[in-house]
Amino acid sequence: MGQGFAEILHKQKDSLKKQYGLDFEVVAISDPVKGSVYEEDGLKLEKILSLVKETGKIDGYAGGTKGLDSIKTIISTNANVILEVSPTDIKTGEPAITHITTAFNNKKHVITTNKGPVALAYKELSDLANKNNVFFKFEGTVLAGTPALNLGLEALAGVGIKEIKGILNGTTNYILTEMEQGRTYEEVLKEAQRLGYAEAKPDADVEGWDALAKVVILANVVMGGDLKVEDIEREGITKIGLSDIESAKSENKRYKLIGKVWREGSQIKGSVGPEKLDIQDSLAQVNGATNALTFMTNNLGEVTIIGPGAGKKETGFALLTDLLSICRRKE
Amino acid sequence: MGQGFAEILHKQKDSLKKQYGLDFEVVAISDPVKGSVYEEDGLKLEKILSLVKETGKIDGYAGGTKGLDSIKTIISTNANVILEVSPTDIKTGEPAITHITTAFNNKKHVITTNKGPVALAYKELSDLANKNNVFFKFEGTVLAGTPALNLGLEALAGVGIKEIKGILNGTTNYILTEMEQGRTYEEVLKEAQRLGYAEAKPDADVEGWDALAKVVILANVVMGGDLKVEDIEREGITKIGLSDIESAKSENKRYKLIGKVWREGSQIKGSVGPEKLDIQDSLAQVNGATNALTFMTNNLGEVTIIGPGAGKKETGFALLTDLLSICRRKE
Repeated sequence: MGQGFAEILHKQKDSLKKQYGLDFEVVAISDPVKGSVYEEDGLKLEKILSLVKETGKIDGYAGGTKGLDSIKTIISTNANVILEVSPTDIKTGEPAITHITTAFNNKKHVITTNKGPVALAYKELSDLANKNNVFFKFEGTVLAGTPALNLGLEALAGVGIKEIKGILNGTTNYILTEMEQGRTYEEVLKEAQRLGYAEAKPDADVEGWDALAKVVILANVVMGGDLKVEDIEREGITKIGLSDIESAKSENKRYKLIGKVWREGSQIKGSVGPEKLDIQDSLAQVNGATNALTFMTNNLGEVTIIGPGAGKKETGFALLTDLLSICRRKE
Repeated sequence: MGQGFAEILHKQKDSLKKQYGLDFEVVAISDPVKGSVYEEDGLKLEKILSLVKETGKIDGYAGGTKGLDSIKTIISTNANVILEVSPTDIKTGEPAITHITTAFNNKKHVITTNKGPVALAYKELSDLANKNNVFFKFEGTVLAGTPALNLGLEALAGVGIKEIKGILNGTTNYILTEMEQGRTYEEVLKEAQRLGYAEAKPDADVEGWDALAKVVILANVVMGGDLKVEDIEREGITKIGLSDIESAKSENKRYKLIGKVWREGSQIKGSVGPEKLDIQDSLAQVNGATNALTFMTNNLGEVTIIGPGAGKKETGFALLTDLLSICRRKE
């Protein structure tokens, strides 16, 4: 998704400056596989993008300093915003937590799409960001580029959110949607793996871990909770067979994997599990890899946002949203 | 909706201060029917709200200056934010345009829920606001408190919006939804009038004028167009009979009154009219008085927001959204 973002930045550089006053240079890239390059006046993104397309690496870039690891890139380059896009490890949050802590201690803003650090250490990290007077942004961790967190935190500020529930994982929603057509779980999972929707080891999706990370983020960031990963009841979709889906259909219902956060007295609770929704329910209508989130509120009733929940370009766009938000706030 | 907003402010005063740093006093209220009162240290909202409930007026308020008209209230009170909530006149934009111009010339921020001034004079008014270094906010003009404009302008900044389409009027959507149950237009309209959804003279809704005002606002504010009200093709729902609805049903389709804005070369175009949508279409699923807006984008595909499009409290909430946004930007 770093690449998806680089493509957006490259294509829209002029219009971003003109329309939003965003004037930037990408000065460094560090990737454990593709390589690392730093040029304090800014890298030529067009060159980088075509190198990656042709060679899968950025080592062939002419000029600049090569081979800085991620920590050195964060500390010793002149970047003032760090985009942390390492893959999620929901058990440890690493290497992202170390990257982010290092950036904050060096007075650099962080934008991340990695769910691990936000689900595991939101409070500590946002305190550290505040202490260092820098921003910690992570729109891409929930619903990819679809601005779900922005909606909950800014656009719906003051609305009184009682409950948030939604379809937070595209892979499982794709599988359930296809099973509605009478195809078996195994058959659809194989196809999803072939299409790149699901990993070879699909547990993060089908056992609900990915949705769970997002539930913790919504609970702690949007609803002010203090939940840990282990506080959330979690069930995936692996126990749902074709016969369950058929029997739900006969009751005019449809299975969806629902992530939920709600207030119970002074406590915030969360859960992930399959639910049989009435076919008229707005979340039941959300099909394929699309995600959706409904906010139940005091002042506005129900507000729902529907959009893509994954994809290189779609998640890359979340990085832009956060960058523009930092740019607006710094004015 | 000024009253809906006053209720929110009164109930949430402490939490708004604690959670968002919003510290305010309502110093003046001016209403051509309910009366006018000004107290430079702040009015007692609880007192005002119970007076309105009991007497329908605010004249009985103990203390303060009475009888200032709207212009005097804008100019001579110590208010620094003016909430303009007069009813929409889509032909002249008055008295709102005069109110807003007066406020800007006196260096006061304006928040309005009135579609007239934004549809008819967005460019002139926002230029005047910029010149005076004050904010011009109007979230409540489209989809009431559902943050549709915020989504288009801030949360989706940089996304590359190609087209916006949606269900922009709750009354007509309610009528069409009820007609799906086999009830006639006349019957449902009468009921909507009894419920207060539709006015005695229902043209603004059923002839598409209300949706048209919102289309002009979306075109000019979100898509940078320069459309006039008369540039938009407009058709209401009055020509749709039960037989049309039945025949659409038999094709698995459903009529919706759709407002649309799109890019055609370098031009922005807009229209309002009934469309037969496939029953699977996400907008076809939006029933009753609920509104919805879909953004078709370059970087994110389709993003849809669904929520209430009318209501005293729901529109009142838009005023709070804008007030919090001004508060955030002034930091």
